[in-house]
Amino acid sequence: MATIGDIVVAAALNIITALIFLIAFAILRLQPVNDRVYFPKWYILGLRTTASSEGSRQQFLNLDFRSYLKFLNWVPHALTMPQSQLIHHAGLDSAVYLRIYLLGLKIFLPIFLFTWTILIPVNWTNNTLEISQETYSQIDKLSISNIPHASPRFWAHVAMAYVVMIWTCYMLKIEYETVANMRFSFLQSEKHRPDQFTVLVKNVPPVDQESVSETVENFFLVNHHDNYLTHQVVCNANKLAKLVKMKRKKQNWLDYYQIKYSKNPSKRPMMKTGFLGLWGSKVDAIEYHETVIEKLSNQIAEERKNVTNNPKSIMPVAFVSFKTRWGAAVCAQTQQARNPTLWLTEWAPEPRDVYWKNLAIPHVSLTIRKVVMGVAFFFLTFFYMIPIAFVQSLANIEGIEKVAPFLKPVINIKLIKSFIQGFLPGIVLKIFLMLLPKILMMMSKFEGFLSISRLERRCASRYYLFKFVNVFLGSVIAGAAFEQLSAFLHQPASRIPEIIGIAIPMKATFFITYIMVDGWSGTAGEILRLKPLVIYHLKNIFIVKTERDRERAMHPGSIGFNTGEPQIQFYFLIGLVYALVTPLLLPFILIFFGLAFVIYRHQVINVYNPKYESRAAFWPDVHGRVISALIISQVLLMGLLSTKHAAASTPVLLALPVLTMGFHIYCKGRFEPAFIRYPIQEAMNKDTLEQVREPMNLKRYLENAYVHPVFKDHEASDEDHYEDHDGSVIVPTKRHSHHPQAS
Amino acid sequence: MATIGDIVVAAALNIITALIFLIAFAILRLQPVNDRVYFPKWYILGLRTTASSEGSRQQFLNLDFRSYLKFLNWVPHALTMPQSQLIHHAGLDSAVYLRIYLLGLKIFLPIFLFTWTILIPVNWTNNTLEISQETYSQIDKLSISNIPHASPRFWAHVAMAYVVMIWTCYMLKIEYETVANMRFSFLQSEKHRPDQFTVLVKNVPPVDQESVSETVENFFLVNHHDNYLTHQVVCNANKLAKLVKMKRKKQNWLDYYQIKYSKNPSKRPMMKTGFLGLWGSKVDAIEYHETVIEKLSNQIAEERKNVTNNPKSIMPVAFVSFKTRWGAAVCAQTQQARNPTLWLTEWAPEPRDVYWKNLAIPHVSLTIRKVVMGVAFFFLTFFYMIPIAFVQSLANIEGIEKVAPFLKPVINIKLIKSFIQGFLPGIVLKIFLMLLPKILMMMSKFEGFLSISRLERRCASRYYLFKFVNVFLGSVIAGAAFEQLSAFLHQPASRIPEIIGIAIPMKATFFITYIMVDGWSGTAGEILRLKPLVIYHLKNIFIVKTERDRERAMHPGSIGFNTGEPQIQFYFLIGLVYALVTPLLLPFILIFFGLAFVIYRHQVINVYNPKYESRAAFWPDVHGRVISALIISQVLLMGLLSTKHAAASTPVLLALPVLTMGFHIYCKGRFEPAFIRYPIQEAMNKDTLEQVREPMNLKRYLENAYVHPVFKDHEASDEDHYEDHDGSVIVPTKRHSHHPQAS
Repeated sequence: MATIGDIVVAAALNIITALIFLIAFAILRLQPVNDRVYFPKWYILGLRTTASSEGSRQQFLNLDFRSYLKFLNWVPHALTMPQSQLIHHAGLDSAVYLRIYLLGLKIFLPIFLFTWTILIPVNWTNNTLEISQETYSQIDKLSISNIPHASPRFWAHVAMAYVVMIWTCYMLKIEYETVANMRFSFLQSEKHRPDQFTVLVKNVPPVDQESVSETVENFFLVNHHDNYLTHQVVCNANKLAKLVKMKRKKQNWLDYYQIKYSKNPSKRPMMKTGFLGLWGSKVDAIEYHETVIEKLSNQIAEERKNVTNNPKSIMPVAFVSFKTRWGAAVCAQTQQARNPTLWLTEWAPEPRDVYWKNLAIPHVSLTIRKVVMGVAFFFLTFFYMIPIAFVQSLANIEGIEKVAPFLKPVINIKLIKSFIQGFLPGIVLKIFLMLLPKILMMMSKFEGFLSISRLERRCASRYYLFKFVNVFLGSVIAGAAFEQLSAFLHQPASRIPEIIGIAIPMKATFFITYIMVDGWSGTAGEILRLKPLVIYHLKNIFIVKTERDRERAMHPGSIGFNTGEPQIQFYFLIGLVYALVTPLLLPFILIFFGLAFVIYRHQVINVYNPKYESRAAFWPDVHGRVISALIISQVLLMGLLSTKHAAASTPVLLALPVLTMGFHIYCKGRFEPAFIRYPIQEAMNKDTLEQVREPMNLKRYLENAYVHPVFKDHEASDEDHYEDHDGSVIVPTKRHSHHPQAS
Repeated sequence: MATIGDIVVAAALNIITALIFLIAFAILRLQPVNDRVYFPKWYILGLRTTASSEGSRQQFLNLDFRSYLKFLNWVPHALTMPQSQLIHHAGLDSAVYLRIYLLGLKIFLPIFLFTWTILIPVNWTNNTLEISQETYSQIDKLSISNIPHASPRFWAHVAMAYVVMIWTCYMLKIEYETVANMRFSFLQSEKHRPDQFTVLVKNVPPVDQESVSETVENFFLVNHHDNYLTHQVVCNANKLAKLVKMKRKKQNWLDYYQIKYSKNPSKRPMMKTGFLGLWGSKVDAIEYHETVIEKLSNQIAEERKNVTNNPKSIMPVAFVSFKTRWGAAVCAQTQQARNPTLWLTEWAPEPRDVYWKNLAIPHVSLTIRKVVMGVAFFFLTFFYMIPIAFVQSLANIEGIEKVAPFLKPVINIKLIKSFIQGFLPGIVLKIFLMLLPKILMMMSKFEGFLSISRLERRCASRYYLFKFVNVFLGSVIAGAAFEQLSAFLHQPASRIPEIIGIAIPMKATFFITYIMVDGWSGTAGEILRLKPLVIYHLKNIFIVKTERDRERAMHPGSIGFNTGEPQIQFYFLIGLVYALVTPLLLPFILIFFGLAFVIYRHQVINVYNPKYESRAAFWPDVHGRVISALIISQVLLMGLLSTKHAAASTPVLLALPVLTMGFHIYCKGRFEPAFIRYPIQEAMNKDTLEQVREPMNLKRYLENAYVHPVFKDHEASDEDHYEDHDGSVIVPTKRHSHHPQAS
C-alpha cells in the first residue's frame, strides 16, 4: 500500500510534468510561426490574418525576451472573457461545456470543506488500524477504514451522505435551470436559422404514380395548409460523396507532386501504382494523377446526373419548412398519420449538423441496428479482453517467429526481444483503448442517428459506461469484467454493493495517482497541442502554397464531446464515491477541475472550432450521469457500511438513492423538455417580434438550406459552403469536412 | 393430491350450480315483472317502455308455457347481433371489452389442440412417477412432473414454448391492430362530440390583476389565434355538489314518508333524528324533512352564489375549445410554455367521463399523492394480512366477550359459538376482499386522475397486481406475501423463478378448482343479477310512484372494468403458465372464456349501461397484461426446467422473454399512440368532411359543454343532463350519478 510519502513523490512528478507542458506551451505560443496552431479560432473568425500583430511579417521566432517573462499571462486572458461574449465567440455548446468543469468546482469545493472539517477528524481519532496490526498507511488512517465495526461514529458519515446529496442536487438543479434558460435566450437572440423553421420528416410512405416530393407536398398542403412553405427531398448521394472525396484526395497528391516538380524541375516525380506506393509499375506521378482525376470527374458528373434524375435515389425523407416557427414547432411535436411509424416528424438539426450518410438508411432497419449495436456494445464492454488476450498471445516471440520466420535473426537480438516481450502486450491494449472512441463512433453511425451531435452524445454515454465497467469496477475489483459479470449473476442482489463497497477504501491511492496522471498531466498536455503542431509544420513545409492552403493546414479540432465529457464524468464519479470514504482524494479532484477549466476555456477561446451548434442539447446527459454517479456512490456506501456492522444506518441510507431518483424524475419533467421541444409560446413570441422588426423572404432563404453538401460544392473544393445565406449566423464557424473527427 | 375422480366430482358440482343459475335466469327473465331487471338497456335507449311486447300490460307472470321450452334462446339472441350494431347499441368500450373474451378463445383454442396432441403423449409415456414411488395422481402423470431429469423430451416443451409465444403474440398483434382501427373508424363515424374540439388545460399560472378566465383567453388568443374558439373555467364546486347530493337524499326520504302517509293517512310517520334513526327525539318525519330540505336549499343557493362570484373558487384549470379538431389536436400534443409544468394540455375526456371532484386538486400535490399511493399500495399488497390477522385475533370469543360483556349469554350458545369460531375469521378476510375494489378506487381518486375511465384503468391494473401477488404467488408458494418478499430479497435473482417454478405443477388441481368455482359458477351467477333483482323489487314495493321512479329503480350497472378485466387477465395468466406444465388445465379455461363471452355479450346487449365512452382507451392495458403474463410464464418455465437438470435448454428459453419484450416494444410504438393522440391527418380529414357536409355553430354548441353538473342541474333533480345538446350522440346512454359505482 502506498504511503503518504509515495503520494507526495507521485504528486511532485506530475506537477513537474504539468509545469513542463505549461512552460513549453508558454514559449511555443509566443512564436509567430506557431500562431496558427495556438490561435486558429481567430483566423477562422477572420479576426486575425497573420501573426504580425506585434512582430514583423517574416519573423518566425519571437526575440522579444520581455514577452517571455509574462509566460502565464494567457490565464487571465482565458478567464476574463465574459460569458455573453464567449457564447457569441465560440457558441453556446462550448460555453455550456465549460460550465461542466465549473459545476465540478461548485459541487466539490463545499463538499471538500465539509468533509475535511468533520469526517477527517472523525476518522483520524480512532486506532482500529493500529490495533489490527495489519500493514496500513497514514492515508488509511484518514479514511473510513479506521473506524471500528458498529461504531456510532458512522452516523457522521450517514449525515454527511445527506449533506453531499442535498448539496449536489441543489447545484445540479440550479445548473439545469441556468442552462435551460441560456438555451432559451440563445434561441430568442438568434437571427434566422433554417432549423427554426424546418422539420425533418422520416418514413414518407410511397404513393403510386407519385414522386416523394409530390407526396410530401400534397400531405403538408392538406394537413398544414396554413403553415407549409416548402420542402427539400433527400437524395442518396453517398456514392457521389465518396467519389468527390476520392477526387479531392487525388487532387491533394497531384498538388504535392506538382510542388515537388516545381521545386526540382530537373526530375519528374515518379510513383508506384500499387498498395501505398510500395509496389506495382512505376509511372509518372503527375500524369497518373491527372488521368485518375479526369476519370473521377467523369464518374462524378455521371453519378450526379444519376442521383438527380433517378427517382430511386430519392429517399423517403424530407426537410419540410414552414412559414413560421409556430408551424414548425406544431408539426415537429404532433403525430401526423394514423400509423405512428409513418410521417415521423422531428425538429430538424441545423444544416451543418446533419449526418447525411445516415439519411439513406431505411427506417425499418433502425430497430434491428439498435438491437445489434446494443448487444455488440454489451460484448465489447464485458468481453473485450478476450480478443485482446488472443492478440497478445500471438504477439509473443514464438508467435512472430511462426508467422514470419524470416524475422528470426532480428527478433533474437536481445534488446528487441525484451522490448517485444515487455511492451508489445501492453501496446496492443493501449492501441485498442485509443481506437475505442472511433469504434464507438462507428457503432453509433451504424445505429443510424441523423445528426453529428446525437452521434457524439451516444458515443459519450457508451464511452462512460465502458469506463465505468472497465476502469472503475475493473480497478476496484480485480479481474476481467466478464468474470465479475458471472460472479454477480450468481450472487443475491444485496451482496453486489457489499463486494464493491469493501474494496473501495483500499483503492483510494490508485485513484489519486490516476487523477494526477490522467487529470493533471493529461490536461496540461492538451494545451500543448503537440500532434497538431507537428502536423501543421510538416504540412507547411511540404504542401502549403497559398494562404488558403495554410488555412487548411491548421487543424483547430473541436472540443470532442464524445471523449471529453465521459472523462469529466469519471471524476465526478470518483469524487462522489470517495467524498465520504477517503476525503483525502477531494483536493486532487478540485485541482483537476480548476486546471481543466482554465485550460479548456483558453482552448475554446483560441483554438477549437465547433462542428455544429446543438444549443447545449447535451445537458440532460451530463445531468443524468452526475445523478447516476451520486446514486452509485450512495449504493456503494450502503454496501460498505453494511459490512462494517452498521446495520442501523441501512434504512436511513436506503432513502438516499430513492430521494436522488425522485429528484432526477422531477428534473426530467421540469427541465428536459426545454432541450427537446420548441414551446409554442416561445415560437409564437419570436415569430411576432420578427414579423414586426424584420420581415423577409423566407421561401428564398429556406429553399436550398438543406441541400446535400456535394450539390452545393460543385467545384469539389473543400471550402465551406455551410454559412447562412444572409450571413447572419451567430457563430460564423466553418466546417472542414475533411477533419478526421468528421469522418 | 387430488385425483381425476376429485376433479370430476368438483366439475359436476360446479356444472350443476352453473346450470341452476342459468335455468333460474331463463325462468325469471321471462316474467314481465322482471323485465326491467333483465332488459334495462332497452328501456334506457327508449326502445321499450313496458314489458308488454307479448303479454298484457298488467301481467306479472308469464303463463305462456311454450316460451319456457325455449329457455336457452337468449344465447343465439346474444350472439347474433353484428359488431357494428353492437357498437351502435352499447358503445365501443363494451364491444371491445367483449373482444377480450374472444381473444382468450383465439389464443387458447389452438394452444389447447397443440399441447394435447403433442405434450400430453410426451408426458404420459414416461414412468418417472411410478418409479419414484411417491404418491401421485393421474393428473400428475399428464404433467411435466412425469418426465425424468435431464430427459431430451424437454425439448418438446421448449419448442412448444416458442409455439405458444409466437401464436399469442400473433393474436395480440392482430387484435391490437383491429382495436386501433375500430377506434379510428369510431372517431371518424362519430358526429360532433365536445371532446373532439376540446383540450383540458391544467396548471394555468396566476397573473396579477387578471382572472383565470382572462389569463386563459389571452394566452390562447395569442398562441393559437387562428384556432381558439372559447373556453370554460372550472370552479371548485365540491361543497356545492355535496350539499346537492345531501338534499337529494333527504328528498328521497321525504318521498318515502309521503308515500307511506298517503297509503295510511291515519298515522303520520314518525322518526328519530339521531344516528341511523336509532335514537334521538321522535319527530314528525315529513315535517322534519321538509325543514331540512328548505335549509339545504338555502345553503345551496348561497354556496352557488359563492362559487360563481368568488374568484378563489375558480381553479387554475380550464376546458379550452377550438374551432377545428385540428386546432385541438395540435394544442393537446404540444408544449405550450417554456416551463413544461405550466399550461399542461391534454385531450379532454368527454363531459360525462370527467371526474369533477379531482379538478380542484392543486397540481403540485399530484406527485406527492402519486408517491404516497404507490407506497400505500405496496404495503396493501404485501402486508394486508397483518391488519386482517389483527382483526381476526379480536374477532374470537374472548375478544367479543371482553368488548361487549353483555353478549356473553348469547355467545355461549353452542351453535353461535362454533359459528363465530369457524366462520368469523374467514368472513373478515372475505369482507376485506369484497371491499378491495372500493379501497383501490378510493386510492385512485386520491391520486387525482381527472376522468372516470382513467380511475377505472388504474384500479384495474392495481387489482391485477394484487391478485397476482396474493392469489397467484400466494397459492403457489404458501406463506404470506411479506414473508416471500423478505425471502426473495435474500436470494440471488436467478433462484426466485426456480422456487416458484418447482411449486407450479403441484398446484394445478388447485387452479382447476379455482377456475370452476370462480370462472364457471361465478360467471353463471352474474347473469342471474340476484342483488339488482331483489333491490328492484324492494324499491318497486316501497318507493316507486311514477314511471320515472321505476326507471330510477332499475339498476343496470356497468361492465365494471376495474374488477372484471383483472379477473379475465388472471385466467390468461393461469392459462399461459399451465399451458406447458399441465395442459390438462386448458379446457377448463376454454370453457370459462366461452361461457363468459356469451353471458357478458348478453349482459352488454340487454343490461349494462356504460357510464362513459373512452373509445377503447383501455386496450393498451389489456395488451400489456397479457404480455406480462406471457413473460411470467416463460420465466417460470425456465425456473422449472433448470431444476429438472435441463440446463441445455436455458439459453434457448432465455430468448423467449427477450423476444416477447421486443414484441411488446414494437407494439407500443406501433399501436399505442392510436389510443393517446389524435393524429393530425385524421383530425384534418374529419374537419374537412364536416365543413362540406354539415357546417354548424360550434361556439353555441361548445359554450356550455363542460359545465359542472351541479350548475346544469338547477332543480337538483337527479335526471340526466349529460346528453349532447343536439342529441346527436352515437351512444345515447344516460348516466345515473347516484349509482354506487359512480360514488
